[in-house]
Amino acid sequence: MSKTPDSAVRTYIAQHRAAFLDDLADWLRIPSVSAQPDHAVDVRRSADWLAAKLHETGFPTAEVWATPGAPAVFAEWPCDDPRAPTVLVYGHHDVQPAAREDGWDTDPFEPVIRGNRLHARGAADDKGQVFFHTLGVRAHLAATGRTTPAVHLKLLIEGEEESGSPHFRALVEEHAARLTADVVIVSDTGMWSEDTPTVCTGMRGLAECEIQLHGPDQDIHSGSFGGAVPNPATAAGRLVAALHDEHARVAIPGFYEGIVELTDRERALLAELPFDEEQWLRTAKSSAVHGEAGHTTLERIWARPTAEVNGIGGGYQGPGSKTIIPSSAMVKLSFRLVAGQDPDLIEKAVRSWAAEQLPTGIRHEITFGAATRPCLTPLDHPALQSVVRAMGRAFGQEIRFTREGGSGPAADLQEVLAAPVLFLGISVPSDGWHAPNEKVEIDLLLKGVETAAHLWGDLSDNWRDAS
Amino acid sequence: MSKTPDSAVRTYIAQHRAAFLDDLADWLRIPSVSAQPDHAVDVRRSADWLAAKLHETGFPTAEVWATPGAPAVFAEWPCDDPRAPTVLVYGHHDVQPAAREDGWDTDPFEPVIRGNRLHARGAADDKGQVFFHTLGVRAHLAATGRTTPAVHLKLLIEGEEESGSPHFRALVEEHAARLTADVVIVSDTGMWSEDTPTVCTGMRGLAECEIQLHGPDQDIHSGSFGGAVPNPATAAGRLVAALHDEHARVAIPGFYEGIVELTDRERALLAELPFDEEQWLRTAKSSAVHGEAGHTTLERIWARPTAEVNGIGGGYQGPGSKTIIPSSAMVKLSFRLVAGQDPDLIEKAVRSWAAEQLPTGIRHEITFGAATRPCLTPLDHPALQSVVRAMGRAFGQEIRFTREGGSGPAADLQEVLAAPVLFLGISVPSDGWHAPNEKVEIDLLLKGVETAAHLWGDLSDNWRDAS
Repeated sequence: MSKTPDSAVRTYIAQHRAAFLDDLADWLRIPSVSAQPDHAVDVRRSADWLAAKLHETGFPTAEVWATPGAPAVFAEWPCDDPRAPTVLVYGHHDVQPAAREDGWDTDPFEPVIRGNRLHARGAADDKGQVFFHTLGVRAHLAATGRTTPAVHLKLLIEGEEESGSPHFRALVEEHAARLTADVVIVSDTGMWSEDTPTVCTGMRGLAECEIQLHGPDQDIHSGSFGGAVPNPATAAGRLVAALHDEHARVAIPGFYEGIVELTDRERALLAELPFDEEQWLRTAKSSAVHGEAGHTTLERIWARPTAEVNGIGGGYQGPGSKTIIPSSAMVKLSFRLVAGQDPDLIEKAVRSWAAEQLPTGIRHEITFGAATRPCLTPLDHPALQSVVRAMGRAFGQEIRFTREGGSGPAADLQEVLAAPVLFLGISVPSDGWHAPNEKVEIDLLLKGVETAAHLWGDLSDNWRDAS
Repeated sequence: MSKTPDSAVRTYIAQHRAAFLDDLADWLRIPSVSAQPDHAVDVRRSADWLAAKLHETGFPTAEVWATPGAPAVFAEWPCDDPRAPTVLVYGHHDVQPAAREDGWDTDPFEPVIRGNRLHARGAADDKGQVFFHTLGVRAHLAATGRTTPAVHLKLLIEGEEESGSPHFRALVEEHAARLTADVVIVSDTGMWSEDTPTVCTGMRGLAECEIQLHGPDQDIHSGSFGGAVPNPATAAGRLVAALHDEHARVAIPGFYEGIVELTDRERALLAELPFDEEQWLRTAKSSAVHGEAGHTTLERIWARPTAEVNGIGGGYQGPGSKTIIPSSAMVKLSFRLVAGQDPDLIEKAVRSWAAEQLPTGIRHEITFGAATRPCLTPLDHPALQSVVRAMGRAFGQEIRFTREGGSGPAADLQEVLAAPVLFLGISVPSDGWHAPNEKVEIDLLLKGVETAAHLWGDLSDNWRDAS
């Protein structure tokens, strides 16, 4: 019996596994933290590194695209058959801030392999998931004997995703002609678990703001003045407390207006997943669930909008005590949005609400960062089946459906390119995105390689069938 | 006409003014910050400096008294008449934390004279007010031709007042025999204003705590987990919001139990003071008053207990954003207490209240610092009249009555030494205690010298009259 394409793919991956991991580790060593201005040079280095690596992989075109912020990388590998469909893969090469003192066991930018795990900031979010496409396309060529991919393959790997993608939409609009695609594949999401491979059908959107509160012009003595003037740290607390009502629903007027509620079928599919609350709490490093009344935990994290405090600060935070009324305080809030919510309307609602919460004598300023729109893929979309089949071959299991609580600029791609957006991600919840000791499961990373190796042929075949 | 004692005192002070200010500046250069462990060596240096200076002033005894924390200074200058009353002056030589970047125009520990103002951390709180007693007693001797003070004069200058005086009561108890006094004079308070000299008749007490709140074991992704687990920064906000009800009354059950309410006469005396809210707000560097319903601003700061947030912190406070649910958050609270409130009962009440506010899944720890009891001098106390007369001669004006919103260990002295406590302070609200650019008005500082110069004779005379 001749070698099947599946075993050829596996053989090729096994042969190139070591070099693949070494290369990924090199990339992970670059601290491409887009939120910290000090690391701007590293984000640029990361883009240059990736463009060079994509050239080396075989992409005839691999360019660094400047933005007013951090650069993106674009690469293109046309199919020798001009009738083949065009696929645009999206990911990001910037990472969350990370410092050893946040609780990392090792340097976050010095990758370490322990067992089946590769630990580093960005290992799962998102460098690992971008990188599986490099070996994926090589395995696809090796197993099929092709010299070009079965699809016109494009990659757009942005550098500001962890900062809310402030220039991404403009970038996509600027380069829309070169980015044009029949299908967008987003590789920046996760699966249910190691045992239950899944395809994600939607992501939440994100609106973020920082609220600065100003009281006295300088810190004043809490004995001399305490009890008689407004305290901005108290105001910050009261503002935070006013975010939610007693049912843990967001209490900002208009917040839930127009949201797309889950259908009965979607609720049923979610309920079918083997959800183990104890296990989930371990992944969440938390000891109790807490959230909007009337919804399950899965509904809360995937299909319900939220308001979370990401940071709060004011007054004296050093050792010992300081009996002051602080001059100022600060709250950083983020809102996860679901389909039907418009970030512009949310910003307006938050601004009106905040102004109403604050006592006379507390001045405030609200700064909103760039927002990310929510995104939802119809369950009956035909291209979803290609992804499901490719994953099925890689994983040898039934593929189920999830959503993703996190946010990405997928909705911008969908809007600007007028192309359906599909999700292909192999990260699992325990990977610790944004947390200390982030890791990726190496076996799953290689299943991602394998899925990518199968996907281009399936998409191309089904595209021809469909057209 | 022969020189009056008053003009002799003034002449002596004028002659020694420059050296007095130079000496004070030397002392202010020592950053004796008791709340910061790094400055422990400076607090000790400050004590040594003061003991040496008191020796030089003429005190036959001047000792540094060790405590388990920062040292105090004790000095004694007996009267040659053994029947003279004994007076114990209390002050402190430690200061609040201060750093240039908090908003100081100049180095907080490099004293600068601008016009009539001497700027430095501790200029008013409390080194300046301790120091006026040195020139005061010399002027008293020079003007009266005495070789010893008219009272048995003792000074106890502690080194941990800005840290809540954790070892002060034990120190006083340990040395009670040497500290025994007929009257305690506390020089760590203020006057109404430059134009309206006043004597303070009470101080608020102080209880302080830090509440640590723990949620997830590490920071977790607000997209993956947001909306479904408790957020300790949110919990911190809700705790702060629960401190006060909608009338700005402290909402901790039992907080107001047993407090000594103002009498009608006290309310009337307070209402007689030339209070100008606009002016007061400028001093408070604030743009609006805010406090307990049903009370005037003066009542709120002097005679009503409070709950203030001195610091709050949790999650990401750096530049940009970080979409996390933080692992922990922290709140530093202080409670000003009035007569009738027991710090031990307040601690119990706060502990019960805090535990009830927090959702399942948020662990907490509360640490209370050492408390200071509230203190109230009866308006009809005869020794108060000596202070009023001495101040009257120095200021040439009617002396009125105030209270002090701040806190000091006066109540411990009153309790342990069984002696009445009087207040002699010349600081004014604009001095900026605990704030950047703290200063003392040099003219008032010299009126303090003058008052001290008159006080010992008046007290001695009236003591003899009384006994």
